[in-house]
Amino acid sequence: MAVRAHHRLTPGVRRVQLLELGKRHFLNRPYEAISLDQVAEEAGVSKGLLYHYFATKREFYMACLREAVAELSAATEPPLDLPPDEQLRAGLDGYLRYVEEHADAWQAVLRGSIGSDPEVAAIADGFRETMFRRILAAAPEASVPPGLRLAVKGWIGFVEAVSLEWAARRTPVRARLVDLLAGELAHLLDRWSENWAR
Amino acid sequence: MAVRAHHRLTPGVRRVQLLELGKRHFLNRPYEAISLDQVAEEAGVSKGLLYHYFATKREFYMACLREAVAELSAATEPPLDLPPDEQLRAGLDGYLRYVEEHADAWQAVLRGSIGSDPEVAAIADGFRETMFRRILAAAPEASVPPGLRLAVKGWIGFVEAVSLEWAARRTPVRARLVDLLAGELAHLLDRWSENWAR
Repeated sequence: MAVRAHHRLTPGVRRVQLLELGKRHFLNRPYEAISLDQVAEEAGVSKGLLYHYFATKREFYMACLREAVAELSAATEPPLDLPPDEQLRAGLDGYLRYVEEHADAWQAVLRGSIGSDPEVAAIADGFRETMFRRILAAAPEASVPPGLRLAVKGWIGFVEAVSLEWAARRTPVRARLVDLLAGELAHLLDRWSENWAR
Repeated sequence: MAVRAHHRLTPGVRRVQLLELGKRHFLNRPYEAISLDQVAEEAGVSKGLLYHYFATKREFYMACLREAVAELSAATEPPLDLPPDEQLRAGLDGYLRYVEEHADAWQAVLRGSIGSDPEVAAIADGFRETMFRRILAAAPEASVPPGLRLAVKGWIGFVEAVSLEWAARRTPVRARLVDLLAGELAHLLDRWSENWAR
């Protein structure tokens, strides 16, 4: 039955199936502990077919990370028809919902692990850059002075670190944390821009 | 000559030499790109002797990370004879000096890369925990309420993200950035503790 089901899948559907399975493995366990033999077996495909979709283990891993980042990006998409402050709060709410529901995947994308791989770091940085641009698109400044740049990048790191701690305890309630995080950004935008000019 | 020099090194000195060399490789390049054959050759030792000191590539890598964390921890050691605010500023100054002088090592320790390895993540988290304890030892609170915990953990993430951006541009001058970062901690300790009680 498994073999017949396998033949019925189109390449697009097969790729999605492999990515789902890959995310379960790569985003929850050490990279070196993951066996592609086991992933292929669970998917009901040959290892050769797996390599047809992802040429190397590293490529498969990076495709899984990109998939998680695409989900996170969609989950935090600001509703552009709302005022900037509400866009921010909606984005933060989506971010914290994602953290609640996919804590492991979120941590795998954003946190340190083995080796220093610029291509891998660039995947998480791509999401941070998306957050950065969304925030500054909603801010009054057209250009970005250095102080504001430091403040917003810093705030993104602040949100990550707070969320990581929050994921383990889930207090305060999500809406309260959205208030606190949004309040900090407002404070930083005010304080660091002002300080910078002195 | 290299072979004779090799025989003269004591195990302790040899280990330090291998760690120095390992740091240069592991903290600057992707984990998978590093060849232990090349590291052994540069050290003027056999690969067998390298494995005598570090049983696996992963173990060697983790020893290099721990070494970098120990250096960072020493560089940010607060002078306990000074008042809390000056301890904080001295620690931040040491942190930013380390970022200035060892930008690659610092980024390798704290930033994401390939795979999800809890043991590796625990090395960087150990340093974050050291910062956390140093800050709260200097704070008036004896116990740590949840809001304060979130605020301090968040501030540590803030410092990392600001420093990462700052490492690329080096403006403002270090002393000014120490002011700004210390000011943010004071603000958070005040604001998040207060907010929490409502």
